[in-house]
Amino acid sequence: MKMTKIIAASLVASSVLFAGSLADKAKSMGLQPIPIDKNELTKLTDPNGTITPERVELGKKLYFEPRLSKSGIISCNTCHNLGLGGTDGAPAAVGHMWVANPHHLNSPTVYNAVFFKSQFWDGRSPHLEDQAQGPMQAAPEMASPASLVVDRINSIPAYVEEFKKAYGNDVKVDFPTITSTIGIFERTLVTPSRYDDFLNGKDDALNDAEKEGLQVFMDQGCASCHNGVALGGTMMPFPMIKPYKFADVGDFKGDKKGMVKVPTLRNVTETAPYFHNGQIWSLAEAVQEMGRTQLGKNISDEDTAKIVTFLKALKGEKPEIVYPQLPESTATTPKPDFN
Amino acid sequence: MKMTKIIAASLVASSVLFAGSLADKAKSMGLQPIPIDKNELTKLTDPNGTITPERVELGKKLYFEPRLSKSGIISCNTCHNLGLGGTDGAPAAVGHMWVANPHHLNSPTVYNAVFFKSQFWDGRSPHLEDQAQGPMQAAPEMASPASLVVDRINSIPAYVEEFKKAYGNDVKVDFPTITSTIGIFERTLVTPSRYDDFLNGKDDALNDAEKEGLQVFMDQGCASCHNGVALGGTMMPFPMIKPYKFADVGDFKGDKKGMVKVPTLRNVTETAPYFHNGQIWSLAEAVQEMGRTQLGKNISDEDTAKIVTFLKALKGEKPEIVYPQLPESTATTPKPDFN
Repeated sequence: MKMTKIIAASLVASSVLFAGSLADKAKSMGLQPIPIDKNELTKLTDPNGTITPERVELGKKLYFEPRLSKSGIISCNTCHNLGLGGTDGAPAAVGHMWVANPHHLNSPTVYNAVFFKSQFWDGRSPHLEDQAQGPMQAAPEMASPASLVVDRINSIPAYVEEFKKAYGNDVKVDFPTITSTIGIFERTLVTPSRYDDFLNGKDDALNDAEKEGLQVFMDQGCASCHNGVALGGTMMPFPMIKPYKFADVGDFKGDKKGMVKVPTLRNVTETAPYFHNGQIWSLAEAVQEMGRTQLGKNISDEDTAKIVTFLKALKGEKPEIVYPQLPESTATTPKPDFN
Repeated sequence: MKMTKIIAASLVASSVLFAGSLADKAKSMGLQPIPIDKNELTKLTDPNGTITPERVELGKKLYFEPRLSKSGIISCNTCHNLGLGGTDGAPAAVGHMWVANPHHLNSPTVYNAVFFKSQFWDGRSPHLEDQAQGPMQAAPEMASPASLVVDRINSIPAYVEEFKKAYGNDVKVDFPTITSTIGIFERTLVTPSRYDDFLNGKDDALNDAEKEGLQVFMDQGCASCHNGVALGGTMMPFPMIKPYKFADVGDFKGDKKGMVKVPTLRNVTETAPYFHNGQIWSLAEAVQEMGRTQLGKNISDEDTAKIVTFLKALKGEKPEIVYPQLPESTATTPKPDFN
């Protein structure tokens, strides 16, 4: 109910004359920048104060750690590649034994996922620490029983040592601790862009075409769902007004109420193909399909081009990641299993 | 013929009293350090003067580039993981469509491969630039026809631009240029260790147990094949004296003369499982199996432990690799193909 009200309010707001600056208008419509102020950013990304440098460094190792998969060759980074906008560039992932995702679900980006209100396309997970438990255990993804993950990590003394450094000597290196540490690393994957500079008051951070694009983006109603810091990350009914063009691919219907998570638009030029089933490769086509299904309107080619110009400005600066050296296996480390 | 003479000479040398220092003795037996002197190192790693910072940076991107594979999810780094000693930790790799290597060949480390006299287990490739063409095209590895690799890269203007910066505006971004650039990056993957410091004159770089291990390593005859800068990298008959314990796994018989490449011992604690078919997981067992098959002797558990102590000191410092941001695909980029 609340959501519907918000949508309605946004749509009204976007169609009335707005007296303030474009940046102020954007903020009044729920668009929020990544804060410049470190404390403010921390409030958003680390509300429970779990982030420490030791945990981030360890979480990074685990993020790139293929031994968390049954086969030993699939890591978080395989499908959420930090060099490819945090995705795999495929409509839907294949995982262990080359099995395709049974719901034909597209691997969403991990960049800025910390700003999402919930995780997974159906929003079933409350946060990154919980989310990390899913793909690791899923048969068509990393296919690792939790016990295998725990056994692999605990068989490597250098890892256990790092967990002690990160959490204290009494730490139990169990599955929730391992996956939480990955979540903590993911909390740092934030990509500020020129768009943020603009919302943070630097008027010339966007050029005129990009500003016009932002204006059209709001006027057309895109910000009704693509808002907040992530320009997405909340649950919305999908499709809302007209059927989705590729509804026949995969059997994903969202949660019980047909709700689907709104994907972030940050770095959107890097995260094709689009939609939960990765069926649309062109950003322009994706914009128009959204107009049709969610807003019940045909967005003209001209307006679409303007919106796309704006969307390109959401490409952010990625944090520098030094590729981690992973500690070596020992005689007791469970062997890779390709079956 | 020449090789057999060298082996015989080494075996003799190792059994007679040597007047000089242990480091001098090691060098007299063909063991060579990674040079400290930059010019000397360049002579070894870049004899043709092809390395430039632009090519290394581009080669690094291509090394981590999964779009060089047909599926778009397998990169050089998948099987030669720079965080895992340059290997995948599996007996034999699986690749495209989860197909296992038909010869059950173990993925060799890419670290220090620049010091090998030839590439691949059967030594069929003369250098890294040539080697890189193999796995990319092999059906059970990356499964990319050369034309697909060329089309993918040329469809991404940011890549073409980088090739121009690396080779000049007239560069033809063809398959040999793409793979050569990966080879150029790989030339920089050199891992100096305490062992090198020792051979370079720092006597206390190895502790007494490690020095004793080196002594036993030489006395037992290991340096007959594991010599040069790589402690390996030349072609040798295998098995030489007794049959190999796991000869029934895979059908790899070396080249026409039964020659198999001697793997490097650098970072050997990180590159299990051992042998061309990855059948031995324990380093001690590998040492003893080598003694049996190649030297025709049983190396005692005590001597084996000493040798292993020395081998651990071959773990080197890996170059720091900043994980690359890869340029985004365009509308004309050939799509991932999982079939």
